[in-house]
Amino acid sequence: MGLAALAITLTAPAHADTLVDNIQGQTIGADGHVERFKAMLFDDAGVVKALIHDGEKTPKKGFQYRIDGKGRIMLPGLIDAHVHVMGTGFAALTLDLSDTKSLADALAKIAAYAKAHPDRPWLLGGGWNQERWNLGRFPTAAELDSVVSDRPVWLERADGHATWGNTAALKAGAVTAASVAPAGGEIIRLADGAPAGVLVDNARGLVDAKVPPPTPRDYDAAFALAQQNFYRRGLTAVADMGATMEDWQTFRRAGDANTLYVRIMVYGAGIDNTIRIGGPGPTPWLYADRLRLNGIKLLLDGALGSRGAWLKAPYHDRPDTRGLPNFTQTQLGNLMSRAAMDNYQIAVHAIGDEANAVLLGAMENLAQTYKGDRRWRIEHAQVIDPADWPIAERVAKSVGLIASMQPVHQTSDRLMAEARLGPERLSGAYAWASAKAHGAVLAFGSDTPVELPDPWTGFAAAISRIDENGQPTGGWQVQERVSRETALAGYTADAAYAGFAEKRFGRLAPGLRADFIFVDTDPMTASPEAIRKTKVLETWVGGGKVWDAAKPEGGAAGAEPVKK
Amino acid sequence: MGLAALAITLTAPAHADTLVDNIQGQTIGADGHVERFKAMLFDDAGVVKALIHDGEKTPKKGFQYRIDGKGRIMLPGLIDAHVHVMGTGFAALTLDLSDTKSLADALAKIAAYAKAHPDRPWLLGGGWNQERWNLGRFPTAAELDSVVSDRPVWLERADGHATWGNTAALKAGAVTAASVAPAGGEIIRLADGAPAGVLVDNARGLVDAKVPPPTPRDYDAAFALAQQNFYRRGLTAVADMGATMEDWQTFRRAGDANTLYVRIMVYGAGIDNTIRIGGPGPTPWLYADRLRLNGIKLLLDGALGSRGAWLKAPYHDRPDTRGLPNFTQTQLGNLMSRAAMDNYQIAVHAIGDEANAVLLGAMENLAQTYKGDRRWRIEHAQVIDPADWPIAERVAKSVGLIASMQPVHQTSDRLMAEARLGPERLSGAYAWASAKAHGAVLAFGSDTPVELPDPWTGFAAAISRIDENGQPTGGWQVQERVSRETALAGYTADAAYAGFAEKRFGRLAPGLRADFIFVDTDPMTASPEAIRKTKVLETWVGGGKVWDAAKPEGGAAGAEPVKK
Repeated sequence: MGLAALAITLTAPAHADTLVDNIQGQTIGADGHVERFKAMLFDDAGVVKALIHDGEKTPKKGFQYRIDGKGRIMLPGLIDAHVHVMGTGFAALTLDLSDTKSLADALAKIAAYAKAHPDRPWLLGGGWNQERWNLGRFPTAAELDSVVSDRPVWLERADGHATWGNTAALKAGAVTAASVAPAGGEIIRLADGAPAGVLVDNARGLVDAKVPPPTPRDYDAAFALAQQNFYRRGLTAVADMGATMEDWQTFRRAGDANTLYVRIMVYGAGIDNTIRIGGPGPTPWLYADRLRLNGIKLLLDGALGSRGAWLKAPYHDRPDTRGLPNFTQTQLGNLMSRAAMDNYQIAVHAIGDEANAVLLGAMENLAQTYKGDRRWRIEHAQVIDPADWPIAERVAKSVGLIASMQPVHQTSDRLMAEARLGPERLSGAYAWASAKAHGAVLAFGSDTPVELPDPWTGFAAAISRIDENGQPTGGWQVQERVSRETALAGYTADAAYAGFAEKRFGRLAPGLRADFIFVDTDPMTASPEAIRKTKVLETWVGGGKVWDAAKPEGGAAGAEPVKK
Repeated sequence: MGLAALAITLTAPAHADTLVDNIQGQTIGADGHVERFKAMLFDDAGVVKALIHDGEKTPKKGFQYRIDGKGRIMLPGLIDAHVHVMGTGFAALTLDLSDTKSLADALAKIAAYAKAHPDRPWLLGGGWNQERWNLGRFPTAAELDSVVSDRPVWLERADGHATWGNTAALKAGAVTAASVAPAGGEIIRLADGAPAGVLVDNARGLVDAKVPPPTPRDYDAAFALAQQNFYRRGLTAVADMGATMEDWQTFRRAGDANTLYVRIMVYGAGIDNTIRIGGPGPTPWLYADRLRLNGIKLLLDGALGSRGAWLKAPYHDRPDTRGLPNFTQTQLGNLMSRAAMDNYQIAVHAIGDEANAVLLGAMENLAQTYKGDRRWRIEHAQVIDPADWPIAERVAKSVGLIASMQPVHQTSDRLMAEARLGPERLSGAYAWASAKAHGAVLAFGSDTPVELPDPWTGFAAAISRIDENGQPTGGWQVQERVSRETALAGYTADAAYAGFAEKRFGRLAPGLRADFIFVDTDPMTASPEAIRKTKVLETWVGGGKVWDAAKPEGGAAGAEPVKK
C-alpha cells in the first residue's frame, strides 16, 4: 500500500462509531423483557455495537461521533405489522376534504389543490359531507366548475357511497341528461333532468371507469408520502400486506435510488404476484435489510362491518347471513400448499370465527407436510371461537403461529362488533391476551389506510381496551388487554419476529440495525391518554436520521444522514 | 479512532490495487484508435487506474497483488450488442440432438438427459434429423417410450417443422387415432391410424399448448447457462433485445444473489414490459454497472428468410409479396414518442429497405420534438436503400444513430439474401461500411440464439465478408467490410456507446471497469480463419475472473474473484 493510500485511510477511517448518550433507553431485551440503558454505540454501517446500562461506564473514546440525547426517551423504531403501503400513499396523495366545514371552505381547498398540482390530469379526493357543511343538498358540478374547469375533478363522499364531479368528469363518463343510471345507482339531476354533479353507488362506475390508472410517477409520489406517514409517527419498519408487482417495482425504485427509508417486509397479493415478485422463493434481504419479499397474503373472508366476515353462526343483526369466504377450505389448502412448497411465509386474512377455524384447520393439515419454522400468520384474527384455541396451540407449537392484530380496530369497531356478533361471541373478539396465552406471537399493526398508521393510539388501546373518549369505563372485555411490555414487543421485537427479521431489527442490541426513535412520553409509565398524544421527536433508521420534528421540512423527505 | 480500529485498517487496506503485467494489451483508446499497452493497474473495486505503455515504467510497488500475463494478448471484454439472453439460456437448457448420427445415438442421449434431469416435468429439445440418421422414416413414440415413458418428451426436428413426442406427450395433447389434424398440419400415423409420434407444422400445436411454461427456477437455470455461453466466448457485456418482466426479474435475482457476472443492457419488449420494468424511465445502473434498463425494443418487420421483411419492391423470388410491417408508420411514431417522452432509448428491429426507410423517417420526425443525445438504434438494418442514407446522416447528426448489425448474418444469409433480393438490391445489404460512412455508430452482435454468440466468427466476417468455408473468394460485396479497428470498436467501445455505457466499460482506460480477456490470437494481425478459431483463455469482469479455460469447471458457474 502506497503512502497516499495510507493517508486516505487515516483521514477516513473504515470504522467510525457513533455514541448516543444521555438517554433513557428502553428496548425489548433478548429475554423478551424490557431492558433499560443509558447510552448506545453504533457503527458506520448503522449496526448497534453496544448498549451501556446503569452502573456501566460510558466510553470516553473509541468513537468518532457523539450525539447528546438530552435526557430524552429512546425506544427501538416501531414496526407496524399490517399496512397497505401504496394504499396509504395514494390516500395521502389525493385531496382530503374531511376537515372542511362549508362548501366555500371545500371549494377554496380544491382550488388550492388544483393550483399545487398543475400536472395531474385528474384531481381525485374525498371526505366531503354536505351535512357537515349544513348545505341541505348535494353540491353541484357547476360549483366545482367555478374553481376547476380545465380537467376532471372527482371527489368521493365521506361514506364512500357517492361521488361529486365537475362537468369535465361527467363528460369523461359520458353522463348526460339522456343517461340512465345502472341498477343500484342514481344520477342526481337538476330540474331540467341534466346531471347535477353527484353520482350515487353503482352510477359512480360511469366515471370511475374513466379515471386514468396511476402512472409510475404517481406510485413514486404516493410511496414518498406513505413513508413520511410512517417515519413521522415513529415507524421504522412495516409489513406490507398484499403487494402487486407495481408496488414491488416502486419499492425497488426507491431502493435503487437510495430513497427507501422505512424497512418493508412484503407479502405478495395472491399467488401470481408473489411468484412474479419472488420467483422460486422469498427474495434475499435487500438494501441493507430495508426490503424483502417474505411471503404471500391471502384473503379468506371479508370484514365485520359489511358483514363479509365468515361466521360460524348467523350475524346477530342479520340472521339470514353468516358471511362468505373467498375460497373453499380445499382451495385455501391448495393455495397455502403451493406457497409453502417454495418456502413463502403465509399470511391469511381471517376475521370471522368460521374463517379462523377453517384457517387454523388448514394450517394444522399443512403442518403435516411443511415442517420447521414457518410462522404462519393470521391477519386480524378478529373473532376466534374459544373452542378453537387448542388448534391454535398445536399450530403454534409445531410450525409457529403469528396473530397479526390491530388494537385500534377494537376501539373503532366496538359498537359495530357488538351489533354484528351479539353478546355471546364477544369473549373471542379482539382476544389479544388469549391469543398470546395459547402460544401465538402477537404482532401489532394498524391496517392503514383503514386506520391511521399511528402506533401510539394502538398502544394505548392495547393496554387499556378504552377508546380516545374514555369509553367504555374500565375497558371493553378488559381481560383481553395486554401488559405494556407485551404491547411494546408487539410493536417492535415480536413484529420483527413475525417477519423473520428478528436477527436484523426490532430490538436495540449488538448486531441489530440501529433503528430508534426519541419520544416525549414514556409508554411504560404514562397513562393511555398521554401515550395517545406521544410526540415523536426524531426517527433514525440504520443509524441515519430520517425525521426530526424540529425540522419537519428538512431534507429530501426529511431524511438526513448522520453528520460526518 | 481507537488503536484497534487503526490496526484493522492497516492490515486490510481500503485500496488494494492489482497489477497485471507482461501482457500484449490492446484496446480502443479515447481517440477511437487502437491503443497498445504492456501492463494495467486496477483497484479493489475493479476499476482501471492506469495503463502502462511501452517506454513507460511498470510500477514496482503501490499495489497489493500482481498477475503475470505470461506474454499473452489482452483485449477489453467483448460486447454483443444484440442478444436474446433468455432465448439463449432456454436453448442451452434443452436437449440438443443436432450432433446425433443415428436413432440409437439419439435415444442414448435422450436417456442420459432424462437421468440427469429427474425433476423436469417435460423433457424438451430438438435438432434431430432422420435423414442424417439414414432411418428412411420418422422415428416413433414407441421408440421414445423405450427410453423415457414416465413423463412427456417433446423434441423438435432440426428444420423446426415437425416435433417428435413419446406416448406421454401425445396423451398430454389428447392426440389419438380419432384426432383430426388442424389445417396446415399433419399427424403422422401408424398403419392402424394411431398417431405414430411425429406431428407436422400446425398439428404440433395440439401438444405445444400443453407444455408447461417455464418456472422461475427454469429461468434461473437457463440464465446461468446463457451467462456461460457469453463469458466463455469472451463476452463481458451484452444488450438484451426484448426483455419481459420475467426476464428482468431473473436478472435481478442474479444481481441480488451476486451471481450476475455479465453486464446486461436491457431493452424491454414493447411499451408494457418497458414501463413495468423501468417505471418512469430507464433504471439506474445496478449491481456495480452490471444491469440497466436502457430502453425499449420494437419490432417493425420480420425476417428475410421467411419473407417477413418489409421491402420497397416485391421479393425477387416471390413477386406477389413485399413483406409486411407490424405497425403503420403512425403507430410506430406514436410508440416511439411514448418511449422517448420518458427518455427510454429506442431500438427498432428493421430488416427490409421499406422498414428501414419508414423507421428513419419516423426518427427524423421525432427528432423535431425529442432532442439531445438519443442514440436511436436500428437493430439489424439489414437492407438499406442507398437513397435513404441522407436521412440516416441527418438523424445521426441531430440525435445520434446506432446501426446495431450482426456480421455473421451476412455470411449465414448470403445465398438466401441473393435469392430474396435479386442482384440489384445487394449493394445496400449488410452495408456496414456505408452505415459508418453516413454517421451511424456500428455496434456488432450475434442475435443469439439465432446464431451462436461467438464474436470471433463475427469479427472474421466483419473484416472479410468471407464465410468459414472461404466463400466467396475475395469476399461478398467486399466494399462493405470494415477495418480491424472498426470491428474491434464494434465489439467493444462502440457497442458500449450504443448502450450509453461508454463512461463505465467497453474500453480499458482509467476510470472504466476492468473487463478484460486473455486470448491466444491477435485479431489485429491474424487471418480471418485464425480469428474464427480464437481461444479465450480467461475472462475477467470488474477485476474478477469469471472464466478460466484451464479450469473450465472451476467455481460456481466458473466464477472466481481475485485471490486476496
